Amino acid sequence: MTLANAQYLLAARPVGLPKPSDWEYREEPAAEAGEGQFRVQLDYLSLDPAMRSWMNAGRSYVPPVEIGEVMRAQGIGHIIDSNHPKFEVGDTVSGAFGVQRYAVSDGKGVQQIDTSLAPAPVQLGVLGISGITAYFGLMDVGKIKEGETVVVSAAAGSVGNVAGQIAKIKGCRTIGIAGGAEKCRVLVEELGFDAAIDYKAGDVRKQLRSLAPDGVDVFLDNVGGEILEAVLACLARGARVVLSGAVSQYNSAERPKGPANYMQLLVARASMTGFVVFDYVKRYPEAIAELSGWIGSGQLKSREHVVEGGIEKFPETLLQLFTGGNTGKLVLAL
Amino acid sequence: MTLANAQYLLAARPVGLPKPSDWEYREEPAAEAGEGQFRVQLDYLSLDPAMRSWMNAGRSYVPPVEIGEVMRAQGIGHIIDSNHPKFEVGDTVSGAFGVQRYAVSDGKGVQQIDTSLAPAPVQLGVLGISGITAYFGLMDVGKIKEGETVVVSAAAGSVGNVAGQIAKIKGCRTIGIAGGAEKCRVLVEELGFDAAIDYKAGDVRKQLRSLAPDGVDVFLDNVGGEILEAVLACLARGARVVLSGAVSQYNSAERPKGPANYMQLLVARASMTGFVVFDYVKRYPEAIAELSGWIGSGQLKSREHVVEGGIEKFPETLLQLFTGGNTGKLVLAL
Repeated sequence: MTLANAQYLLAARPVGLPKPSDWEYREEPAAEAGEGQFRVQLDYLSLDPAMRSWMNAGRSYVPPVEIGEVMRAQGIGHIIDSNHPKFEVGDTVSGAFGVQRYAVSDGKGVQQIDTSLAPAPVQLGVLGISGITAYFGLMDVGKIKEGETVVVSAAAGSVGNVAGQIAKIKGCRTIGIAGGAEKCRVLVEELGFDAAIDYKAGDVRKQLRSLAPDGVDVFLDNVGGEILEAVLACLARGARVVLSGAVSQYNSAERPKGPANYMQLLVARASMTGFVVFDYVKRYPEAIAELSGWIGSGQLKSREHVVEGGIEKFPETLLQLFTGGNTGKLVLAL
Repeated sequence: MTLANAQYLLAARPVGLPKPSDWEYREEPAAEAGEGQFRVQLDYLSLDPAMRSWMNAGRSYVPPVEIGEVMRAQGIGHIIDSNHPKFEVGDTVSGAFGVQRYAVSDGKGVQQIDTSLAPAPVQLGVLGISGITAYFGLMDVGKIKEGETVVVSAAAGSVGNVAGQIAKIKGCRTIGIAGGAEKCRVLVEELGFDAAIDYKAGDVRKQLRSLAPDGVDVFLDNVGGEILEAVLACLARGARVVLSGAVSQYNSAERPKGPANYMQLLVARASMTGFVVFDYVKRYPEAIAELSGWIGSGQLKSREHVVEGGIEKFPETLLQLFTGGNTGKLVLAL
């Protein structure tokens, strides 16, 4: 069966926000599944801020996407052909299939998904890498304890909104930082955050000082830049800063800015620790079990922002992550 | 007995390096010891990079020295009068007596010193705050382990030279970063460092990459700025960066610079932790016992840079810390 594949390849390394000319759209016959392989038809693509960092050259926690390669992306699809003993036609699977309609895989890094548990977009969000990142970032690296004050940046994003809810479930006081009044309203009124700071509405440091007069115990940072500096200025003794991302810096055409007041870590006897969720792959089931339980009990709300319209919408949809377009997990339906 | 005291008071908050006009030199009759107090004649002053940070206004790990106050400094002296039950005339004592010839104290924070163990300058250096900082910074915060690669900045300074020697004693590979060929020679030939990098002689990052191709496991930083960035670029997986000071930033007239590549902490799954030795005051005896033992066995060398000439030399001697004048602990003999 010859199928028409459509792909987005990286055409150039972006300077600042990715431009249309940084992508190459290609249509070609979809590859067939070889021995020990299967073929997936993608249904949903996960769009994540980290994707922007993969487009840059140089050393990072994963190799960069090379020019001329299909853009890397997590996705969920269903198997349409299989020569693999463990994957059957009709299975729903999740994996790094890339920005394309059809992908061939040998099953490495691919998970079978039970869509009776939750629909596919939820499995890419709360029960996917985003929720798992929030879970281990707070529980394992941040070591949150009941009664502590926990701050989350990009709090309306896919990781942040789950992180704030987990902190709340664990008995912490939860403050989210997000851009815009509507996002802040959703955080407090719909997702149960104790407070939200609209960074577009004024001095984050000042607002945080008044909301957390005894200081911030744990900060899960997805943003970097001025927001990181504002929170560093408000740390409690022995605070833990968990570095999960730095979305404010990924599109910077200049050299990224480090936190000028990093010596607040000394003042507060605090730590700042970098963390990559992929290191926890063996413990994903532990996170998924607990997250699923909270969804089941209604304590954890799942929030997705699904954009319809197929793969052609990929370049413009990706930009929403950097212009603040989404609340919750951004997913492109194919 | 009326004695002529001489003091240096902070006259103005310096911009950049402290100028003569930032100090007020005052001669006046020395205060008498009241009830429960004793009077000390200072013999040696400890000069430390952190003193520069105490001259700045604003939140830090200790309150700033106020304008018109005697400049804060650690010192060693002998008691000349006492109305205190636990301190006797003739006792040698160490404490934060300030930059002056005579000080009155109620004994709070003052330690009795056994000069038969080691001469006073050593007690301000290896067996004083500097050595204790190196000890807990590496052992407790950095958690050095045998076989690891340990890097120390300001390695010819009072904390750095001891830290490098401790790491070596504990079976680590030790690399010091210092300014100038002669300092680097002393580190390797006299103090037993495995290697030294002269930051004045070229690209620190490049030199470090070639000296530590498998990456840096523990970095005790006293410098900040470009040296911190260079080491962050060379971290091994799971590295620990211990923030002990930031001497490159204390005299900055502009806003301090944060490490632009702080997200290397994420790439390396590394942590950066601030640390203040005063938190370990109850455990000082533990450090002093081990450090004394190593001095006794000849494994640890004590290195002081004693400047003669009395209190009038204070302002110019302090500057040596920032111009790289000293190798080992800088002490002013009164």
